[in-house]
Amino acid sequence: MEKIASTDHPVLEILRKRWSPRAFSNTEIEKADILSLFEAARWAPSCFNDQPWQFIIATQDDEDNFHIMLDCLVEKNQVWAKNAYLLVIAVAKITFRTRESGNRHSLHDMGLAIQNLMLQATSLGLYTHAMAGFSVEKARENYEIPDDFQPITAIAVGYPGDPECLSPDLRKMEFDERERYPLRDFLYEQKWGKSFLS
Amino acid sequence: MEKIASTDHPVLEILRKRWSPRAFSNTEIEKADILSLFEAARWAPSCFNDQPWQFIIATQDDEDNFHIMLDCLVEKNQVWAKNAYLLVIAVAKITFRTRESGNRHSLHDMGLAIQNLMLQATSLGLYTHAMAGFSVEKARENYEIPDDFQPITAIAVGYPGDPECLSPDLRKMEFDERERYPLRDFLYEQKWGKSFLS
Repeated sequence: MEKIASTDHPVLEILRKRWSPRAFSNTEIEKADILSLFEAARWAPSCFNDQPWQFIIATQDDEDNFHIMLDCLVEKNQVWAKNAYLLVIAVAKITFRTRESGNRHSLHDMGLAIQNLMLQATSLGLYTHAMAGFSVEKARENYEIPDDFQPITAIAVGYPGDPECLSPDLRKMEFDERERYPLRDFLYEQKWGKSFLS
Repeated sequence: MEKIASTDHPVLEILRKRWSPRAFSNTEIEKADILSLFEAARWAPSCFNDQPWQFIIATQDDEDNFHIMLDCLVEKNQVWAKNAYLLVIAVAKITFRTRESGNRHSLHDMGLAIQNLMLQATSLGLYTHAMAGFSVEKARENYEIPDDFQPITAIAVGYPGDPECLSPDLRKMEFDERERYPLRDFLYEQKWGKSFLS
């Protein structure tokens, strides 16, 4: 289902098209396309080019491992994410590889990479839904993630499904209009709170 | 100067084209294009759709305010960022707007928005260079940024400049090949460290 953003100023069509549905089909995603998603993430910039991004993935082709990953999600995400063909847990390296210190930009840089991944997905006719709602502890335990890495986001990726298969409350959200604060609320000049648009 | 990424798997052309130069020209960026950059940021997803992104900007048209922002950068960034027409300080709201708790995804979500901004810039023939190297304290003080907000990234935005105007060490970096770790180093399945590509 398409849900193109109604923008106040022109932006790239791919940015307007990306949105986060809950209705996914379990149609297979070809391996070549999966690789393109993470290749897209790979070319994000990062602080000192440290590339703090790691990804663990599971597809419906590997039922056991898919369920191990699905089980990391909170229940209210499991109910719809179980249909997506591909699940991802994104893990940040929170210390630098090349220097002895914490990387205060690791989560920020993960975001840069993940947005690339999501836009690449959009270009392939895929949809993505990033989730904060998963158990960091369960992910860390299941995958034996080392201490200097932090699971940060889970992502469902798949071809679109039929919104009619969702429960009534989720179906309503699926059709809700996409909303954002207006630019004047967050774009300032000269001082905090002084809108650039005024 | 173009520096297209040599990808191992196909990705969107706009992702290949985006890179972070240091040679900028001070050519004016039209206001309509500046608005498109932040409109692009606006449509990123975020945890609970909280949209933790705020941006303070300064252009070379407003010399005094441009220098106030330039002065927030570390000196080694000032030497080249001073030529960019537009400077940005991106500020995260680190507590949720709609609930009483810290937002552990605020920096991640800033990254999502900033990648959108950078890709929109690329589509307009602009280049961006995000910097961790600036004084959070100076930014907070200059702009009187409230405690529940955190300056996180500075960004130079502009049309391309002549690399020959850079100092020898920066010029060398400008021509260096773009490098990333291979996918097999960060894309896992089943368990931590088990490459999806093997």
